[in-house]
Order: sequence, then C-alpha cells, then structure tokens
Amino acid sequence: MGKLLFRADDLKNFVARYFLTFGVPEADARTVAEVLVAADMRGVDSHGVIRIDSYYGSRLRRGMISTKPEIKVVAETPSTLALDGGAGLGHVVGVYAMNRAIEKARESGSAMVTVRNSNHYGIAGYYAMMALPHDMIGISYTNSQPLVAPTYGKTAVLGTNPIAVAVPALEEKPYVLDMATSIVPIGRITVYEKSGKEIPEGWGIDGDGKVTRDPSEVLEGGALMPLGGIDLMRGYKGYGLGMLVDIFSGVLSGAAFLTSVGMPGTNLPANVGHYFAAMRLDAFRPVNEFKAEMDRMIRELKNAPKAVGQERIFIPGEKEFELTEKSLRDGVPLLEEVAAVLKKAAEAVSLPFDLPVVGRID
Amino acid sequence: MGKLLFRADDLKNFVARYFLTFGVPEADARTVAEVLVAADMRGVDSHGVIRIDSYYGSRLRRGMISTKPEIKVVAETPSTLALDGGAGLGHVVGVYAMNRAIEKARESGSAMVTVRNSNHYGIAGYYAMMALPHDMIGISYTNSQPLVAPTYGKTAVLGTNPIAVAVPALEEKPYVLDMATSIVPIGRITVYEKSGKEIPEGWGIDGDGKVTRDPSEVLEGGALMPLGGIDLMRGYKGYGLGMLVDIFSGVLSGAAFLTSVGMPGTNLPANVGHYFAAMRLDAFRPVNEFKAEMDRMIRELKNAPKAVGQERIFIPGEKEFELTEKSLRDGVPLLEEVAAVLKKAAEAVSLPFDLPVVGRID
Repeated sequence: MGKLLFRADDLKNFVARYFLTFGVPEADARTVAEVLVAADMRGVDSHGVIRIDSYYGSRLRRGMISTKPEIKVVAETPSTLALDGGAGLGHVVGVYAMNRAIEKARESGSAMVTVRNSNHYGIAGYYAMMALPHDMIGISYTNSQPLVAPTYGKTAVLGTNPIAVAVPALEEKPYVLDMATSIVPIGRITVYEKSGKEIPEGWGIDGDGKVTRDPSEVLEGGALMPLGGIDLMRGYKGYGLGMLVDIFSGVLSGAAFLTSVGMPGTNLPANVGHYFAAMRLDAFRPVNEFKAEMDRMIRELKNAPKAVGQERIFIPGEKEFELTEKSLRDGVPLLEEVAAVLKKAAEAVSLPFDLPVVGRID
Repeated sequence: MGKLLFRADDLKNFVARYFLTFGVPEADARTVAEVLVAADMRGVDSHGVIRIDSYYGSRLRRGMISTKPEIKVVAETPSTLALDGGAGLGHVVGVYAMNRAIEKARESGSAMVTVRNSNHYGIAGYYAMMALPHDMIGISYTNSQPLVAPTYGKTAVLGTNPIAVAVPALEEKPYVLDMATSIVPIGRITVYEKSGKEIPEGWGIDGDGKVTRDPSEVLEGGALMPLGGIDLMRGYKGYGLGMLVDIFSGVLSGAAFLTSVGMPGTNLPANVGHYFAAMRLDAFRPVNEFKAEMDRMIRELKNAPKAVGQERIFIPGEKEFELTEKSLRDGVPLLEEVAAVLKKAAEAVSLPFDLPVVGRID
C-alpha cells in the first residue's frame, strides 16, 4: 500500500483542530498534535495520528476523557511529586508532569513524578526527550492495556509497558531508548494477519500458552510474549521489566495496573498511570565533560567491527532522528489507509480533511 | 558433579578471614563476605565465593584493589551524589554508596548516587534490596568487562551490565529483579563447553557475528548476545538496555565504559562504575496502601491462568527467596569444584579451609 506525504505543520494543525471540536483548549490541542505527529515523524506510526478517533475521539465523545482536567498534587517532597491527572488526555497530563519533573530536578538535582488517573499518552520517548534541551537525562514509563502474558502464563495480563530514556550527547545525536517490554507491539501482529503471513516463532502465544506462528491465534485468545521470548531465551527478564514499569506507573502512582487498566473499547475509565524522572547532568559531572564522553561512547559503538553482512551499528534513537529529518524535509508519510481514517474521523466532527499531499511513496 | 553443604555463617567467617589476610579492615571484610555468600544462598553461584581469588585475591595481591579506599565526594546536590570509590572493593564501596542513597532519599524523597573508580561488586540485587527495610524502592546498576556484542556487531563491546530493582510488598515476598542485560552470563556458556554440549541457538555469536551453537566459538573470538537475541526478536532492545546501564554507571559517574572497563586478568585498573537509587514509598502514597496493592498485583500474576504444562507463575526474586530459606535451613550448596577453589585460595594465603560439611547433594 502506498504512502502519502503531508507537511508536518499541516498535520499538526489538522490534529489540533480535531481536538478543538471536542472542547479541548487550544494549547492542549496543540500539545496532543505535537506528540501524535512526532510519532509519525519518528516512524512509530502505530502511536501517531491513526489513533485520533479510536483511542481519543471515541472516548472524548463518551465523556471518558476530561477535556479540561484538574491536575492535582497527591503528595510532594523536594525531589518527588505524585499527581492525579484528572482523567485528562495523556499527552496533556504527561507534558505537564514531565515539565514538573524538570523543574524539580533543577532545584534538587533529580526528581521523579508519578501520575494516576490519566489516559494513553502516545510515545513514551516524547516525554523523556523533553529533558534534553535542559542538559538533563529524561525517563518516561507508562502502563497500558493488557496484551502480554507473564512467563508460564497464557493470558494477556501485562501491558506492552514501554521504557523510554533520553540522554544528551555533544556532536552526536542523543541516545533515545523507547522500547515496549514485549517483543513486538500488537499492531505488528495485526499487520501479519492482514497480509496473510505467519509471524516469526516466538512473538506470540495461543490460548494454551504455546508459541504459535498464526497471528490470528495470538489476536484471538492468545497473548504477546515479553522481550526475550520463551524461558530458555530468558523471556522472564522481559516479563520482569514489564512488571517493573507497571509497579512504577501503576502501583506507585495509585493508578490501575495489570488487567484493571481500561481497554480503549470499554466503558471503564482507563486510569492509566505514568512515571517520569529527570536528572541534571551537572549534578554528577561537568556538562561538557559528560557530553564529550557520550560522543566517545557512541563513536566506539558505531566503529566497532560489524557482523558479516552488516554495514552499520545503530545507537538507540538514531534511526528515528533520521526519519524525523526526512519527514521535515520531504513530508510526513502516512499510509493511504491512515489518511482515510483521518478523513473519516474529520467527517464525524464536521471538519474538512483537505491537507495538500506534497508527495507520494509507492 | 556433587554439591557440599556449608553453614552460611561458617562460609561468611571463612570469606571474611580470607580478606583479612590482605589487610582489608574487619568490618569491610565482613561486608564482602555478606555480599558474596548472599549470592551463593540465592543460587547465583557464578557471583559468589567462587570468585574470591580470581576476581578479588588476584587483584589485591597485585595492589590493583585498595584495601583501605578513601571514598571521596565528586559532586553533590540534595538528591544526587557522585562518589569516587578510591579503587576499593566493589562490595565495600557499593554498600557505602547505597547507604548514602537511602540517607539522602530519607531527606529528599528520592536520591541517585553514582560511583567511579570501583571494582566488581558481586550481585547487583544485594544493593537494591538494602532499600527494602527502609520502606523504599532500591535500584542498582553496574557496568562490567566487555562480553556482549551490540546488534549488528561481532565483538564484545558491552558488559553483561545488570539491572536490579527491589520493591517492598506486605505479606508477599518483595519484587526483586536482578538481571544481566545479556541473555545469559558467560559462565553459562562455559558450563556447556565443559560438558561438551551445544548451546541453544541465539545465546551467542562466533567471530563473524553469526549465531553459533558451539560454545567454544562464543568463548574464543565470539560474544554473548544481548537480551532478545537477533534483531528479528528485538535484541536491539537488550543492547539498548546494556548501553543504558553503561551510561548511568560509566559515563555519568566518570568511570570507565565499554571496552575500557578492566578485565579481571589484566593489569589495568578496573575503574568499574555503579549507579544506585532509592525512593521513599511514602513520598508517593501511604506505605501500607502501596504494599497492599503490591500484594494484589503479585497475587493477580500468580493466579493468572497457566500455560499448558506449567504449574506456577513466578515473581522476579521469588525463586531466590526460596533458595535463600533453603540455604539457611539445610546449608549453602557449593559445587565440589568450588570447595576445591576455596581450599586452594585459602592455602595461597596460609589459611585453613576446614569448614564442617553439613550435608551433600549428589
């Protein structure tokens, strides 16, 4: 299927206008647009504009997401803050919370902020990267709807619970890890099912908990496997990491956790939880010394001997920076079917979807 | 090969006496003994008493580990501390640093402590678990000698760089994640080589960077694979996590990183780096509320439907708590060859190895 290219600003304006129709304040609608379009620019299209209706519009219509959330302080110390997100849009609550983490780290050296009572916040990496211009390391976790089985289990109990960490460098691009703690996201399984292909052995299990190559068995009654896969390959470490993210995002914050996290299709409040942290580089060593050493680490990795048949070793986040630059230069690529989803979502709120197509990839 | 059982206290006394012969102060020798024997009690025998000569004695003899390290403050803020470990024993420096993290978290809500100029500190989980009696979450990372290839690389550039996190519960055992960011440690490959068996596909690569089932190819010119394995199974996430640990432990602290971390056999200073963090539960929500919710999470996971053929879902750390209880009740199991290593190490410092054997497992 072909892809259409749109200007990033056009897409952001469209997404912001879409959220305005639900009564979301202008500044918040812009925030949501920034985070969603950033996902598409980074190549993480599963977390981008495709979700405006299915994840957000559908819940806004039913009043399950608050358009004007009252974000409240639950508890606070010099270096920690626990927030209640007031059932707001996850992006709005997330940007607020990460900014508070950065402010508090400026005062105290480092800070951690938890959020309860939020919603899906898009890509975890966006919030971690907010720390970069402040010469800080940023961390962001979130829990999410149950899709992953624990090791020796057979049902979806854990979310794909991502871990994101962003670290500044000097001349090199920053290190940006943004990874689900499952092997692949559920959307990857759907892609295989739609194209009638078998999935690689180990990505998912069927309703008996056995590894299956049939994507429909994973989607109907099965579950995703945690990073690592089966126990022989130490999949219990991926399970342990997924649980860690749920402890920090769900239990510590006082949000929902495990199977209590609301599925997008249900009428239960999502009560998603997040965890953010920020650390000042200069709390540990001089900023430029740190950044120069990051460059040295990155270069040693990139210059390490390549496996036969390979030409490049990548740094976490490197591919996404290249895709973002390309998106800014040539346009943001959206699958034709995603453009159709946007058109339909727009029609449902009586908004035109009339963005100029600036290019095409077949 | 059979295992001999020793009383934990006897083993600790022996290990402490061993380190005393090098001029390590009594309290520090006891600290090292506590950490090393804890590893054997938890079933992590690769990180236990087997290493007293190969990792520690051999370096103490050559003056490469300081017996009376001067631990210095490099930088400090209310919630952060950067330390220089004075080339001391990693256990001594690690326990000091984690205690400082706990103290500072008591004041500020949370705290992070980095250490440069240290040595191998044993099991990462020991330090994370130090937070538990204080109703805090504990975190501990360390970098280590290069053994793991980055994705698309073919040489050992990263350490097995472990991540350890300990979280209190109420009636249930605490959550204790303590995982290398490689699939398996190098010792696991050695075990297969010694027994003449092939390793499972994906644990390691040969000198060309190709997956191999021959353990000797991994050990001679090859490398371990990061958690996840090949790129199709998202091994780049394990690589990203290993790099994360090295950034926090090595770059942020100002210690060595990647291939600069000293190998035990060389005459270079190890300059190992660590990262510790502690967070007060009550900085986020009431302690008993948190712990009760942890119990609820743990029980939901343990009671989740089991895969066909499986009877139990484990919580990270659960098996190790059971092994520790068994070690305290029946004795700490050491392979006969490990007992022989201890005897030889003892002889080299004119110490008797005359511990009563309290049992035997064939």
